[in-house]
Amino acid sequence: MDPNDLAKAFVEHYYSTFDSNRAALGNLYQEGSMLTFEGIKTQGSQNIVAKLTSLPFQQCHHTITTIDCQHSGPAGGMIVVVSGNLQLAGEQHALKFGQMFHLMPTPQGSFYVFNDIFRLNYG
Amino acid sequence: MDPNDLAKAFVEHYYSTFDSNRAALGNLYQEGSMLTFEGIKTQGSQNIVAKLTSLPFQQCHHTITTIDCQHSGPAGGMIVVVSGNLQLAGEQHALKFGQMFHLMPTPQGSFYVFNDIFRLNYG
Repeated sequence: MDPNDLAKAFVEHYYSTFDSNRAALGNLYQEGSMLTFEGIKTQGSQNIVAKLTSLPFQQCHHTITTIDCQHSGPAGGMIVVVSGNLQLAGEQHALKFGQMFHLMPTPQGSFYVFNDIFRLNYG
Repeated sequence: MDPNDLAKAFVEHYYSTFDSNRAALGNLYQEGSMLTFEGIKTQGSQNIVAKLTSLPFQQCHHTITTIDCQHSGPAGGMIVVVSGNLQLAGEQHALKFGQMFHLMPTPQGSFYVFNDIFRLNYG
């Protein structure tokens, strides 16, 4: 699969899951996975899902502006950098965000998120 | 060295070099290094420096807003994600940018940039 197509498919899957059933994102992380969300570090699938499901908003919708990807080295990983808008229910203006995923291959031929760094870009 | 201190030192070195002598950034990349600058991919130290020095502005100044870092895996790499402002000479308003570096260790105990993804964040 072309890396750009893979990155696009991952991004679509990630944010559609985030916007519809955030708890299901746990399947995309493993025990060694790290999330830095607005500067707060969390490690491990369970803790990451706990963090994501405890964010102070319920309904939201991500819209993607840019996706960039590169191979990350001989281990077969891939870096995906996303920019976009996050619309929270009841808010007039969307928030701009940037997010970086480092995907690593699984023995089953799929990928999981090893590194995840999220930041809102304040205007 | 603490990873956060290392990331901060790298970021300060990178942008002060960018703002004072862009051609010297070549020392931070190697032949396998990749740069995606506003969606345009370039590979290898020489090509990356050629891209950076041919950008359509001369004097500029980067100001850093956030730095996040995580270990990238067993190979000893580190992911550094930066957000900040880029002020171009003669322009009234600074441009917001986001940049991701994947640093890999050298045999000499230093680091080089393996992955580099840069995007302006348009308001």
